[in-house]
Amino acid sequence: MSDTQSYIQQNKQRFLDELIELLKIASISADPAYNQDVLNCADAVAKHLANAGADQVEICETKGYPVVYGEKIINPELPTVLVYGHYDVQPADPLELWESGPFEPVVKKTELHPEGAIFARGSADDKGQFFMHVKAFEAMMKTNSLPCNIKFIIEGEEEVGSVSLAGFLEENKEKLSCDVILISDTHIYSNEQPTVTTGLRGLSYMEVEVEGPNRDLHSGLYGGAVPNPINVLAEMIAKLHDEEGRITIDGFYDNVEIVSAEDRAEMNKLKDNPEEFKKSIGLSGVEGETGYTTLERTSIRPTLDVNGIWGGYTGEGAKTVIPSKAFAKISMRLVPYQTDEEITEKFTKYFEKIAPASVKVKVTPHHGGMPYVLQSNTKEFQAAKKAMEKAFGKEVLPYRSGGSIPITSLFEKILGAKSVLMGFGLDSDAIHSPNEHYGLYNFYKGIESIPYFFEFYTQQ
Amino acid sequence: MSDTQSYIQQNKQRFLDELIELLKIASISADPAYNQDVLNCADAVAKHLANAGADQVEICETKGYPVVYGEKIINPELPTVLVYGHYDVQPADPLELWESGPFEPVVKKTELHPEGAIFARGSADDKGQFFMHVKAFEAMMKTNSLPCNIKFIIEGEEEVGSVSLAGFLEENKEKLSCDVILISDTHIYSNEQPTVTTGLRGLSYMEVEVEGPNRDLHSGLYGGAVPNPINVLAEMIAKLHDEEGRITIDGFYDNVEIVSAEDRAEMNKLKDNPEEFKKSIGLSGVEGETGYTTLERTSIRPTLDVNGIWGGYTGEGAKTVIPSKAFAKISMRLVPYQTDEEITEKFTKYFEKIAPASVKVKVTPHHGGMPYVLQSNTKEFQAAKKAMEKAFGKEVLPYRSGGSIPITSLFEKILGAKSVLMGFGLDSDAIHSPNEHYGLYNFYKGIESIPYFFEFYTQQ
Repeated sequence: MSDTQSYIQQNKQRFLDELIELLKIASISADPAYNQDVLNCADAVAKHLANAGADQVEICETKGYPVVYGEKIINPELPTVLVYGHYDVQPADPLELWESGPFEPVVKKTELHPEGAIFARGSADDKGQFFMHVKAFEAMMKTNSLPCNIKFIIEGEEEVGSVSLAGFLEENKEKLSCDVILISDTHIYSNEQPTVTTGLRGLSYMEVEVEGPNRDLHSGLYGGAVPNPINVLAEMIAKLHDEEGRITIDGFYDNVEIVSAEDRAEMNKLKDNPEEFKKSIGLSGVEGETGYTTLERTSIRPTLDVNGIWGGYTGEGAKTVIPSKAFAKISMRLVPYQTDEEITEKFTKYFEKIAPASVKVKVTPHHGGMPYVLQSNTKEFQAAKKAMEKAFGKEVLPYRSGGSIPITSLFEKILGAKSVLMGFGLDSDAIHSPNEHYGLYNFYKGIESIPYFFEFYTQQ
Repeated sequence: MSDTQSYIQQNKQRFLDELIELLKIASISADPAYNQDVLNCADAVAKHLANAGADQVEICETKGYPVVYGEKIINPELPTVLVYGHYDVQPADPLELWESGPFEPVVKKTELHPEGAIFARGSADDKGQFFMHVKAFEAMMKTNSLPCNIKFIIEGEEEVGSVSLAGFLEENKEKLSCDVILISDTHIYSNEQPTVTTGLRGLSYMEVEVEGPNRDLHSGLYGGAVPNPINVLAEMIAKLHDEEGRITIDGFYDNVEIVSAEDRAEMNKLKDNPEEFKKSIGLSGVEGETGYTTLERTSIRPTLDVNGIWGGYTGEGAKTVIPSKAFAKISMRLVPYQTDEEITEKFTKYFEKIAPASVKVKVTPHHGGMPYVLQSNTKEFQAAKKAMEKAFGKEVLPYRSGGSIPITSLFEKILGAKSVLMGFGLDSDAIHSPNEHYGLYNFYKGIESIPYFFEFYTQQ
């Protein structure tokens, strides 16, 4: 075993203890109430980078939450790997569904994680994952085995659309110059079948408001004669899909990549166990666009989901009201070669078109992001594949994921470098949900894989 | 002017001041947080009854909130009028839309109320209206002009479906024996065209829950492959109406009274000013069941409205979640000869039928109530009509309202007496909405009309 790997084995428990401390910080970027926690988290990340051996550690101000920077330049002639991660987390609600506090990390064994998993908001997304890089870096530094330059940017706004990141990248192009970007913010197919993510879906996220009468009305006196904004919103949402599960927005599929039959066959080699899939989320049946497998529906096909809806009386008991307004948050996952701008515009147009004349409709785009693909014949992909194969002792396959990391296309555009999505989570980690967790096996396999990536990448 | 009417004129300001005090009590029966306020309100009502001259005043315990009772039996041989009202009020939210505090009554002039209107939750529904009876009773007592026996029952659960009232009536049949029930909890067509309500719609109120996956999921990783309960609920709600605005529930119209063309023509004589109607609620267009006028849609036709909907992420910002569950409160207004039991059953069956196999659906009935009709050739109706004609100095027409007072059919069943719905509010009073108000003109016309009702009713 190399010195680096030995160092990792010897310090496993400490790595975990340190992660647990980091997970106690409620760095929820979407909710202004947690402002100070997010800032505290940035401080903690900076300290970890410095302790691991990074130079020039800096908490870089942005218009929003800061980006934490650190680097180790061992030789300007050598390649540079830029590690990206995010220290902010999703809101934790609904709190009542957590078995332990979202910010009181607990290690528990589960069926899928016989070695234990750490339960906490952000454990898999993304604190537990970016922290692997900090610890792998520490291991390489302590054992003098870092084979090239490294830079870190750990941001605090990923869960709110990385709103300040583009500006930060533009302003710091020089400082961030690199040959490849390494990101662990995705998942592998399973612990038995590790994968490197080669595709991500883009995102277009909208908030819609439907206004009927200019005040809440009594449903007895007015019911039947006025447009009820909740009923209208429901009908409009229903019109966003057809009977085949296809999205009805005009021109929505215009730019969708047509994946060849061969590629689809290759993709479906990944064991798609519908029974296990259904069981894992308690469903008796799955549904989606006609003509595609579950794997395809969540990777190469665009989708539309309502992420939140509200309006009228939602308290205890019964109130016979026709509300003035109803609201929904609606997001679409995009695939190559759709763009978020294009889809945001098409959605807005269509949503306004299908609104009855008697209501007013307001569509407000939240954040968006472009879809991303990394071809499997690139040296970036090959280095990741080999690194993980060495750590897992198994063949590693390419995998297209349904999630979005909008910044991958930003990196390509501004820094001119490809991103390698070497995530180690599992689909079942419940990220963005109550009881989010991250397997200790995955955490450690990640830390082991990272130094191998540096090795293979610089050898090429 | 009679002594009674003089007394009323001389005490107008005090009557209003007393009502203002009563409106300060936040007697919201739907919300357990206001438990003590509801009880305090019962106390206040009891004191008012006693002060006005009632005997046997009692705060009668029930399984829920108490019923306040009082009576004046001047001669057991004479007829007895039972006055019903309710001292509980609707929840006040959304609070931010109130121009003054819902429990901080203010008198303000408006276009429709040049003499002023009192703004507060419960001002029209129903504190301001039952209080007219207390004050009219006081006036008759002080001037020795009460021509028959009177009993009061003022309940505290009307806004939550009068859940304890049937039991109370059953247990106190003797005590409550009467010849007619007099209720002011409805509105007149306008101050220019006073009306007596001769019909009410019934109510069936349901809460529905749609469960998809057994936990919240990340919409990127799962979107497109699983049933999203919000999308499913929206589609199910959309299926509750057809393109003609008709309700699609199997057998929904089976027992609907077919109103004759003559009666419809008579009914539509009430000036239905669509422009003013639209303007009053800020709508550019109205909509409803094809083939019916606005007046008909809100009186002789049954309707279905979503009164509340919620699910997923509804906080600030964006969260890419597919929630496990979505919820809605859905109510239907019924017309003769539908029954709430029948409709509750038909709704439940249909809602379960249209649910996709991949989701679980739960339907929980809240409260219901039967539709009601009072024929205009009865002496009860005639006494009310004449009383109001004398007070308003105008012809009074019969009017069918869209609202529900489920207890009218209870009274008929248990006490064997007809209810006279002699309400004095206006459609525009914003009951159940922010800025509920009640015109002072209406309040005083009500107090003046009531002694006339007693006079005409006992003369017959």
